[in-house]
Parts: sequence; structure tokens; C-alpha cells
Amino acid sequence: MVASRRWETNRIEAFSDGVFAIAITLLVLEIKIEPEQFDHLLRALLDEWPAYLAYVTSFLTVGSVWIAHHNLYTHLRFVDPVLLRLNMLLLLAAAFLPFPTAIMAQAFDASENAERVAVAFYGGTALVIELLLRAAVTYAASRPDLTDTPPPGAAPPSQPKRHWREAVTASLYALAILAGIFIFPRLAAAAYLLVAIRGMLVVGGEGRLSLRGLTPR
Amino acid sequence: MVASRRWETNRIEAFSDGVFAIAITLLVLEIKIEPEQFDHLLRALLDEWPAYLAYVTSFLTVGSVWIAHHNLYTHLRFVDPVLLRLNMLLLLAAAFLPFPTAIMAQAFDASENAERVAVAFYGGTALVIELLLRAAVTYAASRPDLTDTPPPGAAPPSQPKRHWREAVTASLYALAILAGIFIFPRLAAAAYLLVAIRGMLVVGGEGRLSLRGLTPR
Amino acid sequence: MVASRRWETNRIEAFSDGVFAIAITLLVLEIKIEPEQFDHLLRALLDEWPAYLAYVTSFLTVGSVWIAHHNLYTHLRFVDPVLLRLNMLLLLAAAFLPFPTAIMAQAFDASENAERVAVAFYGGTALVIELLLRAAVTYAASRPDLTDTPPPGAAPPSQPKRHWREAVTASLYALAILAGIFIFPRLAAAAYLLVAIRGMLVVGGEGRLSLRGLTPR
Amino acid sequence: MVASRRWETNRIEAFSDGVFAIAITLLVLEIKIEPEQFDHLLRALLDEWPAYLAYVTSFLTVGSVWIAHHNLYTHLRFVDPVLLRLNMLLLLAAAFLPFPTAIMAQAFDASENAERVAVAFYGGTALVIELLLRAAVTYAASRPDLTDTPPPGAAPPSQPKRHWREAVTASLYALAILAGIFIFPRLAAAAYLLVAIRGMLVVGGEGRLSLRGLTPR
Repeated sequence: MVASRRWETNRIEAFSDGVFAIAITLLVLEIKIEPEQFDHLLRALLDEWPAYLAYVTSFLTVGSVWIAHHNLYTHLRFVDPVLLRLNMLLLLAAAFLPFPTAIMAQAFDASENAERVAVAFYGGTALVIELLLRAAVTYAASRPDLTDTPPPGAAPPSQPKRHWREAVTASLYALAILAGIFIFPRLAAAAYLLVAIRGMLVVGGEGRLSLRGLTPR
Repeated sequence: MVASRRWETNRIEAFSDGVFAIAITLLVLEIKIEPEQFDHLLRALLDEWPAYLAYVTSFLTVGSVWIAHHNLYTHLRFVDPVLLRLNMLLLLAAAFLPFPTAIMAQAFDASENAERVAVAFYGGTALVIELLLRAAVTYAASRPDLTDTPPPGAAPPSQPKRHWREAVTASLYALAILAGIFIFPRLAAAAYLLVAIRGMLVVGGEGRLSLRGLTPR
Repeated sequence: MVASRRWETNRIEAFSDGVFAIAITLLVLEIKIEPEQFDHLLRALLDEWPAYLAYVTSFLTVGSVWIAHHNLYTHLRFVDPVLLRLNMLLLLAAAFLPFPTAIMAQAFDASENAERVAVAFYGGTALVIELLLRAAVTYAASRPDLTDTPPPGAAPPSQPKRHWREAVTASLYALAILAGIFIFPRLAAAAYLLVAIRGMLVVGGEGRLSLRGLTPR
Repeated sequence: MVASRRWETNRIEAFSDGVFAIAITLLVLEIKIEPEQFDHLLRALLDEWPAYLAYVTSFLTVGSVWIAHHNLYTHLRFVDPVLLRLNMLLLLAAAFLPFPTAIMAQAFDASENAERVAVAFYGGTALVIELLLRAAVTYAASRPDLTDTPPPGAAPPSQPKRHWREAVTASLYALAILAGIFIFPRLAAAAYLLVAIRGMLVVGGEGRLSLRGLTPR
């Protein structure tokens, strides 16, 4: 162990948990009913369906990111400066998500052009979050000195045949953005929700959540 | 212990604590006095009574859910993918509660029709939270491999005679919603407050907080 | 140790930390400059002095409560249902403080009558917080089975001669409220700030922060 | 170890993490698009570039402070009343940052005079945060009884030749404020971003993050 700086993971996990928890909870502040709408409250509440969909989409998106983050840090015992910076950028992008969420929900009351811009903006943010998450996982997998228990006689850390799997979520976001711009904006919005639901379903260790060459503590 | 994926509970508890703490604290942001009301500030503050009642109701509701969540996770040592997903849905519903809370508080300045819609909306959200909590407790009780210390010689995990007790809160919410729609909206609002107070009173291990067939660590 | 229900303190501390941290941080959201004020931004920023004072007062007030809470729970190993309920009521009152803080800051732009109502409202909330804190400390001191290490050969838990000290903060709040109503509202606002500063200064174990008959872990 | 009061660091770290996490996450609430701007949403989103820059600047600023705070507390085992008060003041200043952030972002739509006032206000807040952080580090370095493992045969706690390094960030803020007032406001805004980026880059143990005379646990 040379003198290169590194930290234990517990406070980084606590700080990240705080940021994810707040980002996920602030989303509801964007949903509002104007006072004059209380004359027809049932209709007003039903008319808010884009806001509810946006809320659920972003909640599950941040939730999936939190699970992937949790899975990554379960393997780690130390964090080095590179990983610390990647984590800060990931939190920066995740904490930004409530803004495109609000834009996307509001755009559904406006023109199709606004919808197109809004879904591209949202998708771009989600794509950046995914790429930063992927960068953190890839970097961590390349640094066995950061992991808790370097598995004795384990397979070498890079397992190329799994690489394509890890790009699934990023590819889905890229496709959805293109579909939203060139075909139909609401197709992209639906895709974001499906990607987030998929993120919850693959939680069992397959797909985006696997950390190549590392086994859980 | 086969290869099925599972996690220790500590970070899930920390993340859930964060979401509950924020959901419970954001409630106060919905209470506002307009600048022109400062000429008669005492009256304006008193006129906000529906907002205070809504704040207390939702605070104690989320507080009861937090206590029940805490009781559940005290018994657990591991979380599997199913429980992780149920927990994420529970947090999604709990973090949504500030919105129906604000709607209910505002509706008391509007028509009785608005009150009716608002209390049904609030009750529906509270009912969903309760059912998701109940689902998590029931699922956890059926999976002894997730608990901390499988009690030796303990009673079998399902104790049918207690089942009715666990449906008390959900039934009270359902009755209150019906009373709010068909009889008098404010009856439902009062019932939500009473259910939340009851949630704090039964904290000692009886009623909604018991986990069938499991003993505390 | 009979079957009466009790919990370890760690998650209650984590949840309380979350609520205190959010209540203390939300305070800044109440400070705003209107767009038309940007023509004379320096003056507009200086004119916000009541908001800054209210921010500092409430920050230090919640900070003192957090320190007292921290001191209390350092002594405790378990929490029983009574203490859990007292804690939830304490959090309910502390999370409410951003509202009277905003009212007090805004009232300084309005009439003296508004100031009078606002400082009484603020002081009343601070007084309730203090009384709930005091109730929790008193109750905890009466239950040696909840403390971490029942001090062998320690003095009996009640030390009457110290009782007056513990009522100092509550008495100061009561006096300040009366002074604010009957003499001059801004006197009360200044007193709240001084009480909060005092709360930070007596942190070394004297005054409000002592737990009768208990020694730190 | 005499009877002077002191606390273990874990709950102070948890509370500080909460405040930093919320301060960093609230920043996004300041970014808004008005409903009438949805006709030209792409332009409206692009026009928000000052808000994005302010968001990134403040996120990385608070992030750097959090890292420095984390580095400091890694060395500490106990906190005494002085350090507790310094920490509370640091949190007070950090939690205030969202307000000057919003002001700086909005001022870029207004006059150059407003920009000048806004960057000075922002820089002043950042400078206060930095000085409080520095005061906490300096004080902690002077109190070996608070550190985890007093390094045997270690260099004496004060290493004067490093002193100038620790003043780098504060000096940069002071210079940027002067440049913003007397030369060009946007120069200061750019400098704040660069200082924050530098804060992320020197994370490896050099510069602002070193704790004189102390080695990590």
C-alpha cells in the first residue's frame, strides 16, 4: 500500500445516500394545482397525469441509480481521488434531474416542439447519469486494491463478453432520444419510464448492476 | 444460501430514513401567508388551521410509517430483490404524500366538492402507502432466510388469527374515504388524523407494527 | 428486562439528524429578491437584513436543539415507546420552525402589529420545542434501564438543585414573548437570537445540555 | 483526559453530511422556466446558461468543502465544544450558499452593476466558508488529544512552511472578488468555478485538504 491517498467508503455512501434521497424527494415539489383550478379539482388532478408519469419515471430512474451505486460500493473498501471525483460528478448530474423532470411534465401542456426539446433534454441528462455510473463501475473494476476482498483465484477483472450488456441502458437512452426527436416525443417519454422499470427488474444481479470480476462481500 | 442476490440492510435503512425525513420536512413548505394578509396577521395565521391540521396529520402518518419500517428492518438482516422493489415503491408513495397534503389543505378554502375530491385523493395515497407497507411485512415474514436470527422453536411464521389486526389501518382508511365521499368530507380528514395518532399509540408492538412470527434482535 | 418494547437508538438518531438537517437547510429558501429589485441589488440585499437575522436565529436555535438531542442520545442505549413519541413530537415542532421564521422575517416589512403577532408566533414555537426537549430529557433521566451504562454508585437520578437551570431557556422564551407583545416586538426577536447564541455557548455540558444523574459513555 | 466535554465524531459527521447534501441539492430548485417560454423552449433552456454555471460552481464548491470536511474528520476521534461551534458556523455558511447562487444566476439577466454586487456577495459567502473551514482545520491540528492516533515520533503539529498553501483558496477568492468589483464581474464568476474545479483536483492530499502534522487513520 503506497502513499496514494484513499478513503474508506462509509461517509461517501452516507453523503451520496443523502443527495439521492433529496433529489428523489424534491420531485414532488414540481407538481402543483393553481387555486382557480379548485372549482374542478377532480379534472385538475387528472389533467396532471404528465406530472405523475414524470414523477414516477424520475423516482424509479434515481432509484435504479441508487441501487447500482449501492451494488458498486458493496464491493469497495476504499475510494481513491478518481473515484471520488466520478462520484461527485454522478451526484451533480443526479441532483440536476428534478429540473428536466419539471420541464418534461410542463412541456406536455405546450406544443409538440416543446415536447421534443423537453424529452431530448431529459434523455440527455439520464444518459449522462448512466455514463458516469458506468465510468465509475469500469474504473472500480480496474482497481483491485480498492475492493474489499480481492477474490483469491478469481477470474481476471475484465470479462469482455459481458461488455455489451453494460451498454444496454446507455444505448436505450440514446435510441429513445433519437425516437423522441425524429419520430414522436411521447415515445421517448414512455421509453424512459420502461428503462427505469427495467432498472428495478434487473436488480437481481444481472444487467447493469453487475460489477465485472468482483464478488460481493 | 444459494447464489440469489441479496444485500445487507444498513444502506437501505439509511436511504429510506433520508426519504422519510425529507418527505416529512417538506410538508411545511406548503404553508404560506400572502404579503397582503400581513395587515391582519393574527387572523391570517388562524385561518391557516386546515394547513396546520394537514401538516400534523401527514407528519404523524409518515412518522407511523417510519416506525413500522424501522420495526420491520430491525428483524431483517438481508434484503432480497423483491423486498428492495417493495421498499422503493413504498418510498415512492411516501414521498408523494406532500402533494395530496397541500391539496387537502387548500381545498378547505374552496367548495365542498373540492373537499370531497381532496380527501379521497389523500386517503387513496395513504391507503396505497399502508398496503405497500403491509406487503413488505407479509413478504418479509414469509422469508426466514432474510431475518437476523431465525428464532429456534418459534411458532410458524404465519399466525392467521392475527391477520385481521394487520388489516385494521387499511380498513380504517377505506372506510374514511367512503365516509368522506358519501357523508361529509371533513369526517374523512378527522379520521386520517385519528388513524395517524393511533399509529403513534400502538407503537409498543401491538397492531400494525407487529411482524408475525419474528422476534426482535 | 421484561417484554416491554424498545429499540436501539441508532436509526432514531439517523432519522432525527435528517429532519434537523433539512429543517435547518430549508430556512434559506425563504430568502428571496424579486426581479424588479435587481436594478438596485445592493440596497435590496441590505434590505433583507430581517431575513438574515431570522435565518441565523433559527439556524442556531435548531443547532442548539440538535446538540441537546445529541447529548441526550449519547447517554441512551435504548428508546421506549414514550421516548419515541416524544421524539416524534419534537421533530414535528422543529420541522415547523421554518414557517414562523419566514413569517417573522416578512413581518418586519409590515406593521408593528404584524411584528407583534409574528414574534409571539415564533416564540411560541420555540417554547414548545424547548418544552418537548426538556420532557424527553426528564423522562430519559427517570428511566435508568434505557441508559447505556447505569453508573455504579452514581448519585440518584434526580438532582433537585439543578432543576432551575433546566428551566432557564424556557423561561427566557416566555419572558421574550411577553416583552415582544407588551413592550417592543424587536426586543423579542433580539432575545431569540441571544437565547440561540447562548445555546451554542453552554454546549460544554452546563445549562440546558446536562442530563441529570447520567454520565457520558 | 480531564472532565472537559467532548463527543465522538460519528453523529456530527452524519448531521454535517445531511446539511451538505441538502444545500447541494436545493441548488437545482432555483432553476426555472416560465410557462410563456415554452413556445421557444430550446432557446429558453439555452438562455439559462448562467443558472447552469452557477449550479455547477456551487455544487463543486460545496463538494470541495465536503471533501475537506471529510478529510478533517477522518483524522479526528473526538470533537470538543470549540470545534462543534466552528462546525455549526461552517454549516450555517454552507447552507446559505443557495441564496447567493440564485442571486448570481439571476443578476446575469440584469445590469452590470447587479452582476458586480452579485459576484461580490457570492465571493464573500464562499470566502467565509473557506475561512471557517481553515479555522476548523487549524484548531483541530493544535489539539492532538482530539485526534484518533497521535502519531508516535511524528513531526510537531505545526509545519510553518506549509502555511502559505492553506491560504491559497482564501487568497484566490479575495482576488476574484476584487477583480469582479474593479475589473469585470464575469471574471470573478469564472474564477469561482475554477477554484471549485481546483478543489476537486487537489483532492489527493495536497493543497487545501492537508491537515498539518496528522496522518490518516
